[in-house]
Amino acid sequence: MARFAPPGFTGSPLVRIDNERDNQAYHDEQLARADAKLLRLTGLAPDVLDGGLLGWGPASEVAPDATLALLGLIDGAPHFVPIDPVQENGAQRSAAMSAALGQLKGDEAATYAVARCLIDWHSRHQFCPRCGKHTRPMRSGWARLCDKAAEGCGSEHFPRTDPVVIMLAEFEGKILVGRQKPWPQRNYSALAGFVEVGESIEEAVARELFEEAGVKATNVRYIASQPWPFPSQLMIACIAEVESADLNLDTREIEAAIWVDKDGVEAALRRDESGPFMPPPPFAIANTLLNAWVAGA
Amino acid sequence: MARFAPPGFTGSPLVRIDNERDNQAYHDEQLARADAKLLRLTGLAPDVLDGGLLGWGPASEVAPDATLALLGLIDGAPHFVPIDPVQENGAQRSAAMSAALGQLKGDEAATYAVARCLIDWHSRHQFCPRCGKHTRPMRSGWARLCDKAAEGCGSEHFPRTDPVVIMLAEFEGKILVGRQKPWPQRNYSALAGFVEVGESIEEAVARELFEEAGVKATNVRYIASQPWPFPSQLMIACIAEVESADLNLDTREIEAAIWVDKDGVEAALRRDESGPFMPPPPFAIANTLLNAWVAGA
Repeated sequence: MARFAPPGFTGSPLVRIDNERDNQAYHDEQLARADAKLLRLTGLAPDVLDGGLLGWGPASEVAPDATLALLGLIDGAPHFVPIDPVQENGAQRSAAMSAALGQLKGDEAATYAVARCLIDWHSRHQFCPRCGKHTRPMRSGWARLCDKAAEGCGSEHFPRTDPVVIMLAEFEGKILVGRQKPWPQRNYSALAGFVEVGESIEEAVARELFEEAGVKATNVRYIASQPWPFPSQLMIACIAEVESADLNLDTREIEAAIWVDKDGVEAALRRDESGPFMPPPPFAIANTLLNAWVAGA
Repeated sequence: MARFAPPGFTGSPLVRIDNERDNQAYHDEQLARADAKLLRLTGLAPDVLDGGLLGWGPASEVAPDATLALLGLIDGAPHFVPIDPVQENGAQRSAAMSAALGQLKGDEAATYAVARCLIDWHSRHQFCPRCGKHTRPMRSGWARLCDKAAEGCGSEHFPRTDPVVIMLAEFEGKILVGRQKPWPQRNYSALAGFVEVGESIEEAVARELFEEAGVKATNVRYIASQPWPFPSQLMIACIAEVESADLNLDTREIEAAIWVDKDGVEAALRRDESGPFMPPPPFAIANTLLNAWVAGA
């Protein structure tokens, strides 16, 4: 098997204590512990310390009216995050956020991703999609209840994660990368799209490649996956052999696309100015995918 | 690469016309065509014809006040489904439904899955999770709008698909299958669980195996995927090598679990009465996973 570095946002040391989430007494006990930690955030942005570490304060710092989620345990200590609604749009990844992510160590970014996805989901899911009533957090911040006691319908709601396929088409020793109009000049990446209801990963890869680039997949192989917290996707990275190199771009989605050979991808990954394109940042799985392809995956 | 039959609910001949979903004129033109088809349903149940085909009527059969989704084109003809709220709980798979699914041809079941996921999603998402106002269908039935013109917040909502990992632990030539208390005696299947926010597929597999069975994954390999329309999951099937065969079952989730060798899995897949267990039905990806493992995947 080809070796490549683990994708960004993976490798968190967090131990999720799923089996105690329904236990309010457990939550309260953990919160009262002297070693309980609270994630320091400004809106949705992390506090990045020297060495690329996340900033945590003592749980005693918590505002008296705050609602907390128990992320889980790290080195045995309970770690919490406030999940009160924030105004910020979790779907956006600002330049400042990209810079912060570039500084965070990989496993710290992974823990941050869990917290960020949870906060953002609570912010955008204050109401019940089934009956429209206000919902309240439950399960140590890992679900919301449309409470019958508050005239709700009783349904429970869980954080949403949208599966997304991201893929390289491959033909005769070259792979396809594309760019969107708003991106900086020379930036190219793998094509991507949401998995729709009623399709497999492989079907979504084939559909997206055909819709966006007009290429027909003949074989799809899975490479790797990562969570992506903008706002909450599961990125599923694949390589698809295609029938021909002829392109028919959907220019509303893809401004331009180019076929690149192994030397070109290697130059791009070195961020070589003379290379054929500038690659996505290391914490994006498209970068992992390019590295994996070069390594023979 | 090991060969095995494609998973259930895949292989639909449907061509999704994503790029025209925002075009109401296109929707109306397709609906007016003489070859336009409408899926026949009773609640959420399909009409299964001889030969395992789905029942479709002419689009002119549609109730005057019905709201339709354009599923896409099959052999060039537009295929629609009514998406008005139904009372049925899409999460349930009744015995009658299982029987109907057993009769439907694979590619017909795949088309049915698309329709069922859409209907069920509309039924359970009539209100905006962000502001609680009533939403209305948009994009030819592939989204809902919280309309500012109706005092909503303007947000758009897309059908939800929850990624789920389903996996076999593997140790020294045997794989692990487990059973839940309500299942018929002797029925065993792969372990499974929802992918949570902020974790990769591989991390979810490792976490679920440890939580449910107490086994530690050392390597996870992806095998196959399928959509699962009860109500709308993306099933991601993997095999995980584990450190040891010692089990520590979470008996709230798993009543019993057994290690089975290749001969035993082959006997189970033949539904041999003397085999070690009864396998899940062919349309479930756990069945595909068992077949793939026997084939050397």
